[in-house]
Amino acid sequence: MKNIFTTLLLGISLFTLVQAQTQPYLNLENATKIADAAQEKAISENWNVVISILDQGGNLILLRRMDGTQIGSIEIAQLKAKTAFEFKRPTKAFEDMIKGGAVHLTTMPITAVEGGLPIFKDGIIIGSIGISGVTSAQDGIIAEAALKATGFM
Amino acid sequence: MKNIFTTLLLGISLFTLVQAQTQPYLNLENATKIADAAQEKAISENWNVVISILDQGGNLILLRRMDGTQIGSIEIAQLKAKTAFEFKRPTKAFEDMIKGGAVHLTTMPITAVEGGLPIFKDGIIIGSIGISGVTSAQDGIIAEAALKATGFM
Amino acid sequence: MKNIFTTLLLGISLFTLVQAQTQPYLNLENATKIADAAQEKAISENWNVVISILDQGGNLILLRRMDGTQIGSIEIAQLKAKTAFEFKRPTKAFEDMIKGGAVHLTTMPITAVEGGLPIFKDGIIIGSIGISGVTSAQDGIIAEAALKATGFM
Amino acid sequence: MKNIFTTLLLGISLFTLVQAQTQPYLNLENATKIADAAQEKAISENWNVVISILDQGGNLILLRRMDGTQIGSIEIAQLKAKTAFEFKRPTKAFEDMIKGGAVHLTTMPITAVEGGLPIFKDGIIIGSIGISGVTSAQDGIIAEAALKATGFM
Repeated sequence: MKNIFTTLLLGISLFTLVQAQTQPYLNLENATKIADAAQEKAISENWNVVISILDQGGNLILLRRMDGTQIGSIEIAQLKAKTAFEFKRPTKAFEDMIKGGAVHLTTMPITAVEGGLPIFKDGIIIGSIGISGVTSAQDGIIAEAALKATGFM
Repeated sequence: MKNIFTTLLLGISLFTLVQAQTQPYLNLENATKIADAAQEKAISENWNVVISILDQGGNLILLRRMDGTQIGSIEIAQLKAKTAFEFKRPTKAFEDMIKGGAVHLTTMPITAVEGGLPIFKDGIIIGSIGISGVTSAQDGIIAEAALKATGFM
Repeated sequence: MKNIFTTLLLGISLFTLVQAQTQPYLNLENATKIADAAQEKAISENWNVVISILDQGGNLILLRRMDGTQIGSIEIAQLKAKTAFEFKRPTKAFEDMIKGGAVHLTTMPITAVEGGLPIFKDGIIIGSIGISGVTSAQDGIIAEAALKATGFM
Repeated sequence: MKNIFTTLLLGISLFTLVQAQTQPYLNLENATKIADAAQEKAISENWNVVISILDQGGNLILLRRMDGTQIGSIEIAQLKAKTAFEFKRPTKAFEDMIKGGAVHLTTMPITAVEGGLPIFKDGIIIGSIGISGVTSAQDGIIAEAALKATGFM
């Protein structure tokens, strides 16, 4: 009887441990939905942008360049997504800090320009989106619209 | 009648001029069709890959990573596409040459592994595709299937 | 008569199709003319510079270093051309924004120093020019003179 | 008298010393002549190549990409010139060594493919030429023709 009880407790304990070892992640299906929402917003505004999405490991899962977008945005969109992911915050946060006088932050390997947003699920970061192509404020509008339309914000 | 004939000749002349100063290119719509065909082939084989497509200038226009694909393939898919674009030939051509004894070619900045194909239109290179994720022979099968399904091969 | 008219319409239709699928580009002959104009301006001012020209894909098509030019200008001229191409605007636009307080833009991989200009044809970007060697204002004067002398500005 | 003689000897000695502190170099005029010769040979063979020329410091002085040349040749032409300059020998020398079994040489940062030649004057290296675009043997033919036509070989 004692053994059974012990086994039962141990079983629960192991189960809890396993639960604690998983975390939410971003799959291509959801990344595609986010990108579609971003593209739809860009088209509705007649803007051309690059859409870049990273996953829960900070690795590129999807990139799309709309026709006519400036070539430099291929790299910038990825860099914005990288900064948003690596620091779990909108790239605008760094932009505002630097504009507000924290010029020393330009020595960090970050891209402090609006248009990058982290993607959270249940309080856990599962990826990020980076938009580049129009003004950085407009890039930010697209990024936000994409996450809101897909329930990630 | 003379006017119509003159107009017709003028039209041909302008057409020739435009032909001589313009060249074909790859847009997002066609890149998406190619990527969809690649993904469809990969799914049908139960393979997970990264699909990377460059445009007529060798610049990234689209990238997709299917769920479960090894992270290293993000870079490899792009490098295969880069080599195929930059040298206007399948990456397998370099793989075969090196395997055949041309070991000195490994000193060039190329990715000599099957899975990268140039994309031509009217004899002009308009981009390339790079696939990575399964064996390089399987990567090559996907790349070829994608171009054939979309009329680019 | 009907046949001629049909042919004419067909000609127009084909022409439109070709227009929609092709775009202008920069060849070595025109790049050479631009470089010659830049060099002529530099010589007339007794300035020594590096002249760098990229094509419609952002790839180097021509580079010349005039005797006595500082070695660092080899890279700077190319970087200015890269920034002008990638963002479809004069590098001076970024210089002015940063000088005007947009310090956060220094976190982008751009070269925000006057002397780089995009090259357009029919509203489409077909390349860029980057000049480096004298003061950035003088570099800019050469770049502008080169494009104006060749009808690209 | 003794003083005059001493002064004379001293003067000769100083003169010799000054002579020993200069060395031949490659200017843009001669680099252009070499490039023109290379291009003329390429045109006569109906080949498209990138021509790259480095100066006595190993720094790029001239680059030209002929229309239709594969984009990868922009980098390869410069790398061949770099290897030829840095090791004062034709890149083919390394290619032959590696083909002959010295595979370990592929671990060096060299480009061991024919088409790169050092440029000498009076036994001193004053630069190098790198050609890329056709087969490496054909690249080598152009490089050699260019130096022979201009008296540098």
